[in-house]
Amino acid sequence: MGATEIVGFLAILGVPPDMPIGIAVDILRGIKDYLEDVGASCIGGHTIFNPWPLSGGEVTAVAHPDQIVYQSGARGGDALVLTKPLGTQPAMAVYRAMKDPVLSEEILKILSRKEAEEIVEKALKLMTSPNKPVAESMQEVKPNAATDITGFGLVGHARNMARGSGVDLEINCIPVIKGSIQVSELFGYGLEAGESAETSGGMLVAVPPDKLDAFISSLKKRGVTAYVIGNVKEGNGKVTITPEAEVVEV
Amino acid sequence: MGATEIVGFLAILGVPPDMPIGIAVDILRGIKDYLEDVGASCIGGHTIFNPWPLSGGEVTAVAHPDQIVYQSGARGGDALVLTKPLGTQPAMAVYRAMKDPVLSEEILKILSRKEAEEIVEKALKLMTSPNKPVAESMQEVKPNAATDITGFGLVGHARNMARGSGVDLEINCIPVIKGSIQVSELFGYGLEAGESAETSGGMLVAVPPDKLDAFISSLKKRGVTAYVIGNVKEGNGKVTITPEAEVVEV
Repeated sequence: MGATEIVGFLAILGVPPDMPIGIAVDILRGIKDYLEDVGASCIGGHTIFNPWPLSGGEVTAVAHPDQIVYQSGARGGDALVLTKPLGTQPAMAVYRAMKDPVLSEEILKILSRKEAEEIVEKALKLMTSPNKPVAESMQEVKPNAATDITGFGLVGHARNMARGSGVDLEINCIPVIKGSIQVSELFGYGLEAGESAETSGGMLVAVPPDKLDAFISSLKKRGVTAYVIGNVKEGNGKVTITPEAEVVEV
Repeated sequence: MGATEIVGFLAILGVPPDMPIGIAVDILRGIKDYLEDVGASCIGGHTIFNPWPLSGGEVTAVAHPDQIVYQSGARGGDALVLTKPLGTQPAMAVYRAMKDPVLSEEILKILSRKEAEEIVEKALKLMTSPNKPVAESMQEVKPNAATDITGFGLVGHARNMARGSGVDLEINCIPVIKGSIQVSELFGYGLEAGESAETSGGMLVAVPPDKLDAFISSLKKRGVTAYVIGNVKEGNGKVTITPEAEVVEV
């Protein structure tokens, strides 16, 4: 983690034979716009026919070895900083459910129509916010360890950090998109236990206490809100959410 | 082209929900075996559910700038060397057709059962032969230009080289897998015109005449058969197959 000099992006695009070509063009245009935002460009890729639309890619970035932050460097006493609230999986479930007459009724039992719109909007904004500013702050402040939070959820990725570092992680705060806990309960995603999958989630960073203020203000300078969600303890790879842990809606 | 120091491979795997998991495991095992053969390893990737099985990946390799061979370096007088015969698209059509009662009858009108088996066998052998030995020979001999031959077919990729280099390419020999021309005619792939798509095709290399013998013996030393298929002329991006061009079955 922490490499900011992006060599290039390779795209993979799967196009259903009956998909209007304009949609494929718009997907590629969206990728191009996003890459421009982070100072990168698409240097190639592969397009296939596929029954489902499919879009993704691969990024190669380079960094001086000193700049790279590994997930295995967390040390007892570090503070745990999360750079995006959780809840993109329930939020995207709302997005899909609101197009379905039956499921949308279920959603509207727990959220108002306005809340349902807001949860989707917030999630889209979060998912399209790159983590590059976080990498820049990491280069500035040099934390001990970092991991992205994606498919394995907060606890899954935290566990990789804990095991890789030979420490325990204690989580006492779970920042979530407002309304996403109720939706997670409806669909059983386990967000309250930090188990819900994230798409384009934030970074979990282990920061020595004497660097914490500098890291948070460095992030703030770049428009990133930091959530201090727990601590690193001596240990052997366990992740616990403390009984008094707070769910904070943002 | 020409980078032989492979940093790593990222895999993408699409698994239909009803596909036996053993098949996914075997696909990954095949990838692993192949990577071991070329001295590389899989360092990550992404697995998704997909209606069709899907398997692919991305390789990052590094090289000293002097070692990199571009497709834009071809010069008038260069010889054109192709490192694999063409015809994987018709060969794979035979593979699929032989499982279909109606299509297999069509195939058996133009090929014997033994020939149908052989064309598939040859294509599989060619497609699973890495181009790394060619890259090593390129580092040894330093040709002027190179491109891989894949989805755009021989003429499509040759055209990229011709345009990129500001030259014309004249092709006077089309080496093909035995039997693939007849199958291409049946399905209209345009192999005789060098237009049929290749999967994991060979390299097309533009070699100055005084280096040609050295390049061919360097390839031979590594078990690669080279086909001299034409010449580079002064020009402006045209690719022509000469009227007296020969189709050579191998």
